Amino acid sequence: MKNAKLKMGMIGGGPGSFIGAIHRIAANIDGAIELVCGAFSSDPEKSKQAGQALHLQPQRIYTSYADMIRQEARLPREERMDFVSIVTPNHVHFEPAKMALEAGFHVVLDKPMTLSLSEAHELKKIIDRSGLHFCLTHTYTGYPMVKQARQMVHSGMFGAIRKVWVEYPQGWLSTPLETEDNKQASWRTDPAKSGKGGAMGDIGTHAFNLAEYVSGLQLSQLCADLNQVVAGRQLDDDGAMLLRFSNGASGVLMATQVAAGEENNVKVRVYGEKGGLEWKQEDANSLLVKWLDKPTELYRAGTGYLGSHASHNSRTPAGHPEGYLEAFANHYRNFALCVQARKAGQEPQAEWLDFPGADDGLRGMAFIETAVKSSQSPEKWTPFLL
Amino acid sequence: MKNAKLKMGMIGGGPGSFIGAIHRIAANIDGAIELVCGAFSSDPEKSKQAGQALHLQPQRIYTSYADMIRQEARLPREERMDFVSIVTPNHVHFEPAKMALEAGFHVVLDKPMTLSLSEAHELKKIIDRSGLHFCLTHTYTGYPMVKQARQMVHSGMFGAIRKVWVEYPQGWLSTPLETEDNKQASWRTDPAKSGKGGAMGDIGTHAFNLAEYVSGLQLSQLCADLNQVVAGRQLDDDGAMLLRFSNGASGVLMATQVAAGEENNVKVRVYGEKGGLEWKQEDANSLLVKWLDKPTELYRAGTGYLGSHASHNSRTPAGHPEGYLEAFANHYRNFALCVQARKAGQEPQAEWLDFPGADDGLRGMAFIETAVKSSQSPEKWTPFLL
Amino acid sequence: MKNAKLKMGMIGGGPGSFIGAIHRIAANIDGAIELVCGAFSSDPEKSKQAGQALHLQPQRIYTSYADMIRQEARLPREERMDFVSIVTPNHVHFEPAKMALEAGFHVVLDKPMTLSLSEAHELKKIIDRSGLHFCLTHTYTGYPMVKQARQMVHSGMFGAIRKVWVEYPQGWLSTPLETEDNKQASWRTDPAKSGKGGAMGDIGTHAFNLAEYVSGLQLSQLCADLNQVVAGRQLDDDGAMLLRFSNGASGVLMATQVAAGEENNVKVRVYGEKGGLEWKQEDANSLLVKWLDKPTELYRAGTGYLGSHASHNSRTPAGHPEGYLEAFANHYRNFALCVQARKAGQEPQAEWLDFPGADDGLRGMAFIETAVKSSQSPEKWTPFLL
Amino acid sequence: MKNAKLKMGMIGGGPGSFIGAIHRIAANIDGAIELVCGAFSSDPEKSKQAGQALHLQPQRIYTSYADMIRQEARLPREERMDFVSIVTPNHVHFEPAKMALEAGFHVVLDKPMTLSLSEAHELKKIIDRSGLHFCLTHTYTGYPMVKQARQMVHSGMFGAIRKVWVEYPQGWLSTPLETEDNKQASWRTDPAKSGKGGAMGDIGTHAFNLAEYVSGLQLSQLCADLNQVVAGRQLDDDGAMLLRFSNGASGVLMATQVAAGEENNVKVRVYGEKGGLEWKQEDANSLLVKWLDKPTELYRAGTGYLGSHASHNSRTPAGHPEGYLEAFANHYRNFALCVQARKAGQEPQAEWLDFPGADDGLRGMAFIETAVKSSQSPEKWTPFLL
Repeated sequence: MKNAKLKMGMIGGGPGSFIGAIHRIAANIDGAIELVCGAFSSDPEKSKQAGQALHLQPQRIYTSYADMIRQEARLPREERMDFVSIVTPNHVHFEPAKMALEAGFHVVLDKPMTLSLSEAHELKKIIDRSGLHFCLTHTYTGYPMVKQARQMVHSGMFGAIRKVWVEYPQGWLSTPLETEDNKQASWRTDPAKSGKGGAMGDIGTHAFNLAEYVSGLQLSQLCADLNQVVAGRQLDDDGAMLLRFSNGASGVLMATQVAAGEENNVKVRVYGEKGGLEWKQEDANSLLVKWLDKPTELYRAGTGYLGSHASHNSRTPAGHPEGYLEAFANHYRNFALCVQARKAGQEPQAEWLDFPGADDGLRGMAFIETAVKSSQSPEKWTPFLL
Repeated sequence: MKNAKLKMGMIGGGPGSFIGAIHRIAANIDGAIELVCGAFSSDPEKSKQAGQALHLQPQRIYTSYADMIRQEARLPREERMDFVSIVTPNHVHFEPAKMALEAGFHVVLDKPMTLSLSEAHELKKIIDRSGLHFCLTHTYTGYPMVKQARQMVHSGMFGAIRKVWVEYPQGWLSTPLETEDNKQASWRTDPAKSGKGGAMGDIGTHAFNLAEYVSGLQLSQLCADLNQVVAGRQLDDDGAMLLRFSNGASGVLMATQVAAGEENNVKVRVYGEKGGLEWKQEDANSLLVKWLDKPTELYRAGTGYLGSHASHNSRTPAGHPEGYLEAFANHYRNFALCVQARKAGQEPQAEWLDFPGADDGLRGMAFIETAVKSSQSPEKWTPFLL
Repeated sequence: MKNAKLKMGMIGGGPGSFIGAIHRIAANIDGAIELVCGAFSSDPEKSKQAGQALHLQPQRIYTSYADMIRQEARLPREERMDFVSIVTPNHVHFEPAKMALEAGFHVVLDKPMTLSLSEAHELKKIIDRSGLHFCLTHTYTGYPMVKQARQMVHSGMFGAIRKVWVEYPQGWLSTPLETEDNKQASWRTDPAKSGKGGAMGDIGTHAFNLAEYVSGLQLSQLCADLNQVVAGRQLDDDGAMLLRFSNGASGVLMATQVAAGEENNVKVRVYGEKGGLEWKQEDANSLLVKWLDKPTELYRAGTGYLGSHASHNSRTPAGHPEGYLEAFANHYRNFALCVQARKAGQEPQAEWLDFPGADDGLRGMAFIETAVKSSQSPEKWTPFLL
Repeated sequence: MKNAKLKMGMIGGGPGSFIGAIHRIAANIDGAIELVCGAFSSDPEKSKQAGQALHLQPQRIYTSYADMIRQEARLPREERMDFVSIVTPNHVHFEPAKMALEAGFHVVLDKPMTLSLSEAHELKKIIDRSGLHFCLTHTYTGYPMVKQARQMVHSGMFGAIRKVWVEYPQGWLSTPLETEDNKQASWRTDPAKSGKGGAMGDIGTHAFNLAEYVSGLQLSQLCADLNQVVAGRQLDDDGAMLLRFSNGASGVLMATQVAAGEENNVKVRVYGEKGGLEWKQEDANSLLVKWLDKPTELYRAGTGYLGSHASHNSRTPAGHPEGYLEAFANHYRNFALCVQARKAGQEPQAEWLDFPGADDGLRGMAFIETAVKSSQSPEKWTPFLL
């Protein structure tokens, strides 16, 4: 059928999952994607319950992702899922992604890409080989004003970029929640499920991705101090690092989950020779643009003077705040537009292709491993380990 | 089928509609509602195009709402739409709502309720008679922190309420846009389509609804000064009024569409004997709570200390901003929960019933007509015309 | 001696005075004014104590203002005070101001000008006749960004002004403080000392003055609703009014002292055909400038791009916040510059003359009496009673 | 004469000085200090002009600080200056301070303490030996809400402190201003006048002092990356560093003068086990207090619920913003209260003694030298070089 909604299958996201529900909302918002199947839990009963609550047909609620990928691949083309959304903990990223890609399904994957950098390299190769679309959901680059920031920096209006400050303070791991039957805390603090990075893997990668995206620069070396602040924790729950970028710019990245009382206010500041800009999620519909010699400008989402990327990624006129879910949804929407274009044999627009992908994922894993290595090193600078 | 999504039909919302797209997103977000049919435009071709773009089955894209209501009513119960969402300009509210209700369909209706107060009285009777669910989409009371505000005021923690200040500044009608082929501006400034109120009908009713909702008070008289600021405009594009509430509290309402440079920053402040609170859409995830003798408190959406109404109406943890679309979606979600409960023969929870309905609609129309009457009167106070 | 500091005498400002201490700080800041004498209290012992604490010479601590004015007038010109600063409650404004002016002393007077409009008319004549400098300390027009706002509006860059919203919320009179031996509350709520206006006289006049100053417009009629919210209070502690200006612009003024939890956040918004601006004391070093079709601009105190009035009234570079005391001091400084210029036989600059004077004082008293009259009237509009 | 104002002499602060004027305002505000003499410039003519403009007696306008100290020391005790305020560039700190102290004068000195750490050690000894009062004007700890922050942290209400983030972004040195006859830029970028630190000496020391003051912790090691961003500059104009404190807490300090468009928004955040706080100069009258499990609190200057230190350092009630000059003046006022107490043979109160002194100065110089050393080192951590 022409013009059908794109069909999504989900891996993970069963009872107790936070990010699974977010992915579903993000996929729902624009009415262009339909959840048709899922393997929501490794516990068959839980998967079934989840699927029923999501109004799925019983035969398309699977008890394992492997089963789902195999079964769906056998369905007629117009019926089977178009892509799979993988929202499991990090240790269950690589295998289902690999399997889905090799079965010909496009993939949306929650960040970070994999459990390790070596897995990421391998997955990158699989993605490249597949020629399929791959989206890694680094939420924050989905915000229209973050896209506006990138476009303005890219235009050169600030001159060469000199400074990048990015911060991501959270406080929710200030106590040993992982000992209190908190599923979110448990897997994130368990190296077997989370990988080498704790806070750095969970939120540091977002901050890193945001910094590179907005500045248009690439990190070349860093000097990290990661900490396990809460007694007994196995992974970093806090850290900061000095940054050096390929063009000589310097910066700072701070990410912590023990800043008691902080919520999730990721913020980035970038400065060039002539001016700079500041964006923070707490005031996500604004972008402060600062100048050496004229008034600061407050760019606002939904207005008529924005660039093509910001405009494309807004749904409402100015003054109707869009938030985290819409930012997330922008990645889904752009991914879906690209997949639909391919199905229709059309070229995607530049704005549609602007979602995080395999390169972001690979660099994110390199970031985690470099940060951890640097933190253990007595030397100041550690080269970016890509 | 047990546990199917709720089925929605839409009236209006074709090409060029702003609010139709908003309603569809709001219905989509939580994955509990499915758009199954629509009569999107009085122009059959436009309706068809809209329906196709929305992935509807051809036979359920209708060319008139009357046709849609009749045809759907004949479908088997498990197939036909459960409710209709009416997103047309004001002059096409009463008839389709009446027809849908009389055909047994629940109704979601964009505000204001009708073209006139007398229509509103009649529609209220029809709603009451039908026993069906009716939701009037006064967006702003869908915000979790607005619900928190209401619940705190209702608890009595501020003592008796003394002051209510509400404001709604917009600037988009600062120029005669209606002469420039702007569909949104055209119908809003045309008395035949908009009714007696211009800005007061469009945004003043929102401000009024928000004030009564948060304060828990009812307006008893007002003193209005409405203006046609832009030359040639037939309806008020600006106004302000002094308010008196049934308990003796006083207040001010300001609503304008000619505050050049303003977006849509609706804001309400309520003060009692012991403290007060402030909420504004621009910082929608915060609620400022002020006290005579202790620090101001910043209540935040998604936190663990909120009341049941705010908590029920959030999707994300603290620090993941939800916005206008989620506020809108909260009305749809609560409406849908009530409809589903009825279908299941269950009692709805108090939190589900917390969406604007027929009484809000009727009071809103009374507000418009009282404001217009007062503005034309040389006397200071005009009693609320319910 | 050439180039001596200007010599100030003070009337009022003894123990328990709030505003007296503020005036002294304002006079001190710039090191151009020296307090040389005072009659600080009608209680001779209290006056003496105050004078000693202020390091005055014993013979210049007076026990009555009449005595001070007479004695100082007899001192040699280079020794006697140049001007008098009157910081008593309202009922002791007219007599000392009259006496000082008639004795040849310039006058700084706390607002409002007098106890009644008729006194104000008479004082205005005395001032005009004297040819002396007269400053009425409407603090808020002393802020550099308020001056910037006025200069921008005056330039015409916003087109004709259409809307003026001004608000002044306080909460400190939410309880009957005047029954609890609170000197500030006592006289402000006593008609014999405060005049016809309570909150309107105390803070409403500031809001009114700010609105006319920034907009460059004059109020022509108003519709007021004043309230005595706290039981037993004799004067209004709360009020709001609709405004109409001479050019046809409309507006709203809100001033209350029973908004529990509010401090002193006076705020003004002015909108013209092309844009508008917003200033609030809570963020006094910023001025938001809004436009129909380009980003909002954030003008900041101390920057290089400001107009001559804002620049002249700043002491520090951008980012070094100046506050209430500096705003107050700007009036003293400009007044002192004018007095010094006169002593030197020079013409004052336009920027120096920019402090509130007799006309502001007269209009302020007219505002109070018009507001009170309107509040008692069943008619909507009351003409401005100048 | 009993109860005379305290007499101040000034060294430096002639034409073109920024900080000299600030010191004079700070000394003036509270009317307790009188400028009686000065050596304002090494150019006798400029010193004379400055002294005349400041209304000094001709015989007390000196052409060198050495002359001033000698001459003043010979005046009768009740006539001569009580203390000297030194506001020269860094290379003229040590000698005049030493000379003044050895002549028996108390000293106020602009930061940083000296040109080098070794000078600082020596000056510290001289101060200790003298038994005189010494104030180093680290402005930011003069703010009432910074004092409130320190008192709250000290109370233990947040539990053990874990994180300290402090930042100080400026943009005014984004271009090579020092080549354009800008006096402020010239000496600050000249190692002979400024010492080893550029931005780190000028503003990094403020940030460092603020971090230690609020957290109550002492820095034990750091890892710095200092940069000369603008081509041709001899000293760092930018830098950041990782911090480790004596109790095991970690942190970050960022200070730059090339963040184009930034003004002077120094900001500090401190987090403990149970909550944290945030203060920034841009909103100096507020202190955000954050908690793991209850609403964020907004503490405000001038309110009744503050601790003794904040209360003592406010002049106005809540909602009357005090700023940079009042913060500066708080140091002068507390210093003056201590000097007056000594003259009266009384014990100073704890609140009066709360101004930065010799230990702060010494630690500040150690900070600069440690930062510079670390920046040149390939090793990650450099111990604090006290």
